[in-house]
Amino acid sequence: MIEQAANLDAADPLAKWRGEFLLDDAIAYLDGNSLGALPKATPDRIAEVVRREWGEDLISSWNTAGWINLPQRLGAKIAPLVGAKSDEVIAADSVSVNLFKLISAALKLQSQNGQRRKVVLSEPGNFPTDLYMIEGLESQGLAEQRLADRGDIESALGDDVALLMLTHVHYKSGEMFDMARLTKAAHDAGALVLWDLSHSAGAVPVDLNGAGADFAVGCGYKYLNGGPGAPAFAYVAQRHQSGIEQPLSGWMGHAKPFDFTDEYAPAPGVDRLLCGTPPILSMSAMEVGVDLMASIGIAPLVEKSSGLSEFTRAAMAEHIPELECISPADPAVRGSQLSFRHENAYELCQALIARKVIGDFRAPDVLRVGFAPAYVRYADCARLVSELRDMLDSGEWRKAEYAERGAVT
Amino acid sequence: MIEQAANLDAADPLAKWRGEFLLDDAIAYLDGNSLGALPKATPDRIAEVVRREWGEDLISSWNTAGWINLPQRLGAKIAPLVGAKSDEVIAADSVSVNLFKLISAALKLQSQNGQRRKVVLSEPGNFPTDLYMIEGLESQGLAEQRLADRGDIESALGDDVALLMLTHVHYKSGEMFDMARLTKAAHDAGALVLWDLSHSAGAVPVDLNGAGADFAVGCGYKYLNGGPGAPAFAYVAQRHQSGIEQPLSGWMGHAKPFDFTDEYAPAPGVDRLLCGTPPILSMSAMEVGVDLMASIGIAPLVEKSSGLSEFTRAAMAEHIPELECISPADPAVRGSQLSFRHENAYELCQALIARKVIGDFRAPDVLRVGFAPAYVRYADCARLVSELRDMLDSGEWRKAEYAERGAVT
Repeated sequence: MIEQAANLDAADPLAKWRGEFLLDDAIAYLDGNSLGALPKATPDRIAEVVRREWGEDLISSWNTAGWINLPQRLGAKIAPLVGAKSDEVIAADSVSVNLFKLISAALKLQSQNGQRRKVVLSEPGNFPTDLYMIEGLESQGLAEQRLADRGDIESALGDDVALLMLTHVHYKSGEMFDMARLTKAAHDAGALVLWDLSHSAGAVPVDLNGAGADFAVGCGYKYLNGGPGAPAFAYVAQRHQSGIEQPLSGWMGHAKPFDFTDEYAPAPGVDRLLCGTPPILSMSAMEVGVDLMASIGIAPLVEKSSGLSEFTRAAMAEHIPELECISPADPAVRGSQLSFRHENAYELCQALIARKVIGDFRAPDVLRVGFAPAYVRYADCARLVSELRDMLDSGEWRKAEYAERGAVT
Repeated sequence: MIEQAANLDAADPLAKWRGEFLLDDAIAYLDGNSLGALPKATPDRIAEVVRREWGEDLISSWNTAGWINLPQRLGAKIAPLVGAKSDEVIAADSVSVNLFKLISAALKLQSQNGQRRKVVLSEPGNFPTDLYMIEGLESQGLAEQRLADRGDIESALGDDVALLMLTHVHYKSGEMFDMARLTKAAHDAGALVLWDLSHSAGAVPVDLNGAGADFAVGCGYKYLNGGPGAPAFAYVAQRHQSGIEQPLSGWMGHAKPFDFTDEYAPAPGVDRLLCGTPPILSMSAMEVGVDLMASIGIAPLVEKSSGLSEFTRAAMAEHIPELECISPADPAVRGSQLSFRHENAYELCQALIARKVIGDFRAPDVLRVGFAPAYVRYADCARLVSELRDMLDSGEWRKAEYAERGAVT
């Protein structure tokens, strides 16, 4: 296994890109699906934004450094990674806030089309914030949440469903929905579709235009390497752009924000998804991460992602049969991650981290590892397997220190 | 005037603090009310967050670097600047998004108390995003906007008013409301009160607890020197904290976010105002700015702010009588800024900037200057007056280049 990994790394056309990240050679970082690694170019770029753009050029940087267009510029760079046109994507706020905007917009579109549909259909066990945002609109009396297990989604698409909202790659299991098929099924049933690409963008094939998707959101701090809590992005298909309304109608989404008028008038297109003033430092860091992904290109990223996860799945099955893999065996329906169930997943995860093999734990019993294709090596995956084997054999993970829980577990 | 300014600077107990900002000596920066200057400590702190916390410690920094508690930690540091208790303030999202949360929460509180009140009362010409957020809730059918001129607000507090929402210091005129009086008037009429402190926090006296205010929001990138688009903050009086609901119920506002449950359960207290994952880089920069303001202390900041604006008002009245001051002459009802009307305010502003005297323009005809007390010198104010006099006498501002407009004007 170790030798096979070495051969794969030697033949890996993306191997050189790890050097573009400030990532200690000794670390097997299998948590880029939670927080992407630091691109080597980011510290200098942020220092420039802080010292020159903010410190020296001050307020004029809104024009001269292009801060005012950063959300659009960044959106246009993300677009090709998710199969969208450059004017269909914008960077803004968080995934949660963007979900709220787009669920609202979808419900409004349906009502404008004379539909009484209020149901937002999703699956139980979706990433919590996705469900919580439906609940938020439910608390306002504007939506009705319905959850159907993934096998039952198509049959749950009744004539009261306004929106089908799903996470493309499941955060815990790594299962990937067939975006094109479910989008079509929803449309056939008169529903709109909103895809959460948080665990997809930058790692798996996404073709929003090809699937005919209506709306999408995605995360900046995972495979896009934008930094902790980096802003999110939102996608609106061109055909909906002039028709949508969303209630977080802040001044940055106004057609003429610097006219300072009392009445809101939405900006053209996807710009109307902006709300308040964007966090420029965080968004500037995100641009570096997105630029790096764009330089590599989405096709080779996707290919390597699949190679890494398949190598790991096979090695784990062979060497660690006692850990149940809850991710699909078929790479075609799996994201860039694998999850394994073990009653002591938490302790195993902590013990691995102590050995610089970094994955994460998801309650109650899942050890999750992610494969950020730009910097993960096959050797990292092999190390995961060999360290785990060693640890399970020695019982080292039973040390009391590995059971201690932090605020974020 | 120049000599008087020199004497005032020589006697200024805050003079030394300018050295804590990376601000060119040659610049008279009178736009800290729009974007605060860069604290000297910020670049190193951000480099540390980027390189060590993100780059080296990666995901573990959520625990080890305290990222997960940054919104609360920052809120507690802001609290004494606005007369709040440490558990009444939290840093999150943007002013706009926080307005949406708190307007929603206020409307919900009223309805829970059996009130049919839906009106949100504000003033025409309030900062646009404040009005736009009311409009957003209006578009959802949940609020009704009513605007009353500032002299008529108390009489407009009818029994249908759920919430009085005002900006404490007006962004354009600098007029400051009597927070205590209007809060009492609203309460007497059965309404709740939400104060926007964007142009107040860090520069003028604010006593939210003393006034009995219910809710407030404020801006991180003005007098708090948090950097471009820094996150905002939100305040909820303790008495409301266990009762409020807000629809942006994202996972970071959940009682146990890392339990990943399908049902939303709000976190205790003001934590429930959190929504998505906060932008850590931007929020870390903001902490440096807030720490600096806390080191100086709000009382001397307020005193100097008043000294600077009064010096400038008097000097402008004496030397530039042709510019009409639209800010109140009485410092007790004025924020830390002055605005002057001139039909060529835009050109004058641009010409001043060319001379490194930086104020800003607010459509259609206002030249606005702000006095960030931590780093503005009396000499800067004197220079504004003398450069303006010189420019008006010479007609230099008539050069064509000064009429060109950027995206942000």
